[in-house]
Amino acid sequence: MERHVKFSPRGHILRVGSLSLKLNEFERIFVVGAGKAGAAMAAALEQILGPENVSGGLINVKHGHTRPAPKKIRLRECGHPLPDQCGLDGAREMEALLRELNAGDLLFVLISGGASALLPAPALPLTLADKQQTTDLLLRAGADIVELNAVRKHLSALKGGQLAAFAYPATTVSLLLSDVIGDPLDVIGSGPTAPDSSTFEDALRVLSKYQVSKQVPAAVLARLKQGAKGRLPETPKPGDAMFSNVTNFVIGSNRLALDAAAEMARSLGYRPLILSSTMQGETREVARVHAEILREVVSSGRPINRPACVLSGGETTVTVRGKGKGGRNQEFALAAALSLSGTPNVAVLSAGTDGTDGPTDAAGAIIDGETVARALKLGLSPAGHLANNDAYPFFKVLGDLVKTGSTGTNVMDLHILLAG
Amino acid sequence: MERHVKFSPRGHILRVGSLSLKLNEFERIFVVGAGKAGAAMAAALEQILGPENVSGGLINVKHGHTRPAPKKIRLRECGHPLPDQCGLDGAREMEALLRELNAGDLLFVLISGGASALLPAPALPLTLADKQQTTDLLLRAGADIVELNAVRKHLSALKGGQLAAFAYPATTVSLLLSDVIGDPLDVIGSGPTAPDSSTFEDALRVLSKYQVSKQVPAAVLARLKQGAKGRLPETPKPGDAMFSNVTNFVIGSNRLALDAAAEMARSLGYRPLILSSTMQGETREVARVHAEILREVVSSGRPINRPACVLSGGETTVTVRGKGKGGRNQEFALAAALSLSGTPNVAVLSAGTDGTDGPTDAAGAIIDGETVARALKLGLSPAGHLANNDAYPFFKVLGDLVKTGSTGTNVMDLHILLAG
Repeated sequence: MERHVKFSPRGHILRVGSLSLKLNEFERIFVVGAGKAGAAMAAALEQILGPENVSGGLINVKHGHTRPAPKKIRLRECGHPLPDQCGLDGAREMEALLRELNAGDLLFVLISGGASALLPAPALPLTLADKQQTTDLLLRAGADIVELNAVRKHLSALKGGQLAAFAYPATTVSLLLSDVIGDPLDVIGSGPTAPDSSTFEDALRVLSKYQVSKQVPAAVLARLKQGAKGRLPETPKPGDAMFSNVTNFVIGSNRLALDAAAEMARSLGYRPLILSSTMQGETREVARVHAEILREVVSSGRPINRPACVLSGGETTVTVRGKGKGGRNQEFALAAALSLSGTPNVAVLSAGTDGTDGPTDAAGAIIDGETVARALKLGLSPAGHLANNDAYPFFKVLGDLVKTGSTGTNVMDLHILLAG
Repeated sequence: MERHVKFSPRGHILRVGSLSLKLNEFERIFVVGAGKAGAAMAAALEQILGPENVSGGLINVKHGHTRPAPKKIRLRECGHPLPDQCGLDGAREMEALLRELNAGDLLFVLISGGASALLPAPALPLTLADKQQTTDLLLRAGADIVELNAVRKHLSALKGGQLAAFAYPATTVSLLLSDVIGDPLDVIGSGPTAPDSSTFEDALRVLSKYQVSKQVPAAVLARLKQGAKGRLPETPKPGDAMFSNVTNFVIGSNRLALDAAAEMARSLGYRPLILSSTMQGETREVARVHAEILREVVSSGRPINRPACVLSGGETTVTVRGKGKGGRNQEFALAAALSLSGTPNVAVLSAGTDGTDGPTDAAGAIIDGETVARALKLGLSPAGHLANNDAYPFFKVLGDLVKTGSTGTNVMDLHILLAG
């Protein structure tokens, strides 16, 4: 997998990372995909390729997410986060298109946040309801994400590398915006073009482990048993020959966003230090650790000297204890404000890259060493708002919410800490 | 405050950090102090000065903590963590010694972990019980450490800079081993030679805030009221002229220990990165953040390239939910093991510098990416042991406890993370 990707069309050569595609050697170019950023991705790709070179294509996007619109690639507005018939119809249409491809064709697959829900494709004769019921049962029984995916991929027609299998023998280039910790190709958008290492037998074992074999729809159990007996094709496995025609590129991710932020910090005169792009854990605790690192920068110049920009990204978790309004980024900022109260020349921004933090109209919030003092003067209790998971009203009164509007895509959260 | 201190006696000149003391210009040299490391500190200082140059002195140490023994400086074995009459007698004896000092004398004050309890000195006519009762009431009422110290210093004869005041006009050099987050001079050992910014009025306000004014011993309230009326001398304040004769050196601290560990890592070929010496928060969450940073080192060479040694120190907190046996360092290691399971070429050590982690005979534990797999093979449940705060038996079975025995002093905990 290549992370740093630049499109550089030169004559008829399109370079995507280390891959060189001689466009005039392909008979046709198609584009399919799904996700909230599908319109922008499709429009940009079309412009790079030249619309006249695109034979056609289809992207399932979320209702209202249709700008900027591509010319040759059709958009279908479908249900998200709950899959609907539109998404299903789009998936069937894509499947039909892929079946027609041959070795002379080039296929681009564009995947962004929400792709899994926007591209529902239960394997026949299963229904959407069959898949949903199975997923719900496993979630309630405590199955983890690896177990859940093993089952879901084996109930699907496109997930788990099967989209790429339909496209074979065409050359397939998958461009992915990752909203998953660690950017695993088999998890982003449920891995439609990535090898799947799980099997029908694994899926059956998961049902058995959580004792839901008798509760799942009969058609689900029947399919998995058929598959385990070798009577259905397995999902494509790592090392399968067909993957020699497939390249997956993560073209947007938390890590790339951190790199861009670090580059911007450097250009502004700060020394950047990226801690991690896979930050996880209880939000206020993660924030406190970050605050202690920033305090060390201020007091001793460790881990780097000022002016410093300490960065991290990922997706933390708020254990809801109160009844307030907020999101994990606003809670991160509030917890950091408490730890950094009185520390001079520091500032912290925490924000979701999709522009939406929890059920609020803000992407996050920004704080400095004076935030707590300012709040107290206004009669706000910073500790009280934190205890009640109520960061939104706190930052609203202070005027320190960060509002970007919807950015159309999601590479998780960014935490940016400055010591001037 | 100087952190990097080296003793370099040259002829009659003793250099302590930037301070140059012409030993032959002093009439007499005395040494007082308290703390668990008092014996070793006194013996080392005596050797540097030459025992023949020391006129006398006294250190209150914990029972059994008498090795290596100094020759001219007397040790008193006293109660810890509960103060006793021995500690009180030692404090009174020191007070008498300090009162006799004059401008030609040099006084060293040696402070290490446990000093506050080992040097109890209630201001007359208060008793140890009066102070203890007041402290207990405030703790139960929810007073924070700043509020608690404001009261305690104003009930004491030596805390809050008053030891230095007794020694005035002698030249006073205080050598401190810090077991407090951030190394604040007014908190280490209750700050016997540091300015105190709190007042009798502050102390009264604290009693009033927590509504314990009528519950504290009558003598306590009477003293604070007298003091607030200006009828008792205040604790020495920042900027007081007497402090021109006083220098405080932190000669041992978590930060210095981290520096030493980083230096050792560098000599072993690792790139060291110190994150913070004031790490705080819920242990397992802090461990997880550390693990994510180490995983980023492995996956992308951020924040530093391998071979890397990421270091931090401080004192985390375990919220006890289970009934197991362990300590915060063992819990840190266990949580890190779960986060790093399967990650190649990494190792994490978490240990308390005093050699004692919680109510166990271990200083901490060590883990790597194989720890969880090894444990599962042995029938241990890593997640179960973590949920039950039961890291000690887990690491005992694995043979991965780190045992150093008591080190005689405490500069809090060290977390050392390697990526080879």
